[in-house]
Amino acid sequence: MTHIPDSHPRAASLRLRERLVEGLHAGVVSETGLIAHGRGEALDYLLGEQTHRFAREALTAASALLRLATHPVMTVNGNVAALVGPELKGLVQHHPWLTLEINLFHYSRPRAARVLEYLRHVGLPRVLHHGDCEHPAVLAGLESDRRWMHPDGVGRADVVLVALEDGDRCQALVNSGRRVIAIDLNPLSRTAQAAHVSIVDELSRTLPQLDQCLQRDQQTSRHELEARWHAYDNRVILGAATTALRTGIGA
Amino acid sequence: MTHIPDSHPRAASLRLRERLVEGLHAGVVSETGLIAHGRGEALDYLLGEQTHRFAREALTAASALLRLATHPVMTVNGNVAALVGPELKGLVQHHPWLTLEINLFHYSRPRAARVLEYLRHVGLPRVLHHGDCEHPAVLAGLESDRRWMHPDGVGRADVVLVALEDGDRCQALVNSGRRVIAIDLNPLSRTAQAAHVSIVDELSRTLPQLDQCLQRDQQTSRHELEARWHAYDNRVILGAATTALRTGIGA
Repeated sequence: MTHIPDSHPRAASLRLRERLVEGLHAGVVSETGLIAHGRGEALDYLLGEQTHRFAREALTAASALLRLATHPVMTVNGNVAALVGPELKGLVQHHPWLTLEINLFHYSRPRAARVLEYLRHVGLPRVLHHGDCEHPAVLAGLESDRRWMHPDGVGRADVVLVALEDGDRCQALVNSGRRVIAIDLNPLSRTAQAAHVSIVDELSRTLPQLDQCLQRDQQTSRHELEARWHAYDNRVILGAATTALRTGIGA
Repeated sequence: MTHIPDSHPRAASLRLRERLVEGLHAGVVSETGLIAHGRGEALDYLLGEQTHRFAREALTAASALLRLATHPVMTVNGNVAALVGPELKGLVQHHPWLTLEINLFHYSRPRAARVLEYLRHVGLPRVLHHGDCEHPAVLAGLESDRRWMHPDGVGRADVVLVALEDGDRCQALVNSGRRVIAIDLNPLSRTAQAAHVSIVDELSRTLPQLDQCLQRDQQTSRHELEARWHAYDNRVILGAATTALRTGIGA
């Protein structure tokens, strides 16, 4: 690991990159995962590497949806595991009702085992994996190994939080009747367009804010959460995010 | 290699990605090179994956500069070698007066040897490398191994073409009094801002166009080339490219 001084203007971005390269060497991140991360870097750069108001609004809607859910699940892929292990640990410590399940784009059993081991090492020993049960559930509309769901995870989830997810899985989750929250830096992506709530922000920056939102909402009444969710309009949020991406000015 | 059908809307982009991953496995591309490529993908996506008018104008200025040069040199790094080996071969076949020299961000002798071997395999047997001469020249203002120059390459070049280059080396080349042409998808980057001619376009798409420009300019008089070069304003071009990146509309 290279030493990156705190004073470096892009220290946070460079540290994330190091986490990712470490993940590649651990067999957790794929080569195309590195390229995908680069795409995210460019988008975050154009957004000024800051959490905009549209993302904060989406975060409060996400918090309401997760609080109102009967069985909320977050799915974790290789990039997510490599990038935000510590942040995920914090989230689950504060909100143990949130189930984690791995779901990999480039799936193989050995790779799934490496990702689970990586997460265990970070302090996340209880992450579901469809390969650990005899009869995994199937998400309709997907051909790849991403269609498998753990029956105690996404299989019975009513709200699913996905991050750095690709469009067809996000769409299939929406089509299945589940509510979907997506964390995605590209407001024009199929993922952001398909999700019910799109948090257009960098993952490691936004997860601790979601954590705080959820903590605040422990005291919020169900009635108030429902009112917040019904008042939320993802089209407006995506419009504001697209404007920010194009102009560099947050709405 | 996965088979990518021609009909796929993003076939060109996916094929480039495969070239790059192949380059990683051959030890030619570094992990951070993959991330850098992802940044380029996002920028090209925002530019509509097309060569805009500002890029075509920059190409004609670049062609004039290269034709007017006494000793023009193009430098090649790991990503460039992996991405555009065949295009480089075409360029040098048509314009054998253009010298190629490798210059790597993450330099080591074994890596340089692998890049040279990779280029030889593509059909480029004569690529200079500072490690092959006893007394390489030094580019002032750089600390890293990127400062070394082959005396028959960048060492005596008056015009240098760089692609996917980082800002400090580009600036150091400009400070040395050389004319610099940069191929770079980010008009806001230090590289694009420092260069005399900034071609804001995707490398594999733009190199064959530069090749054609140079072929046409074989017939162009020195007087006309000089007039074209003096009329060229890189500030205007960068402004148009920035607008296109922000609005998605080419100027």
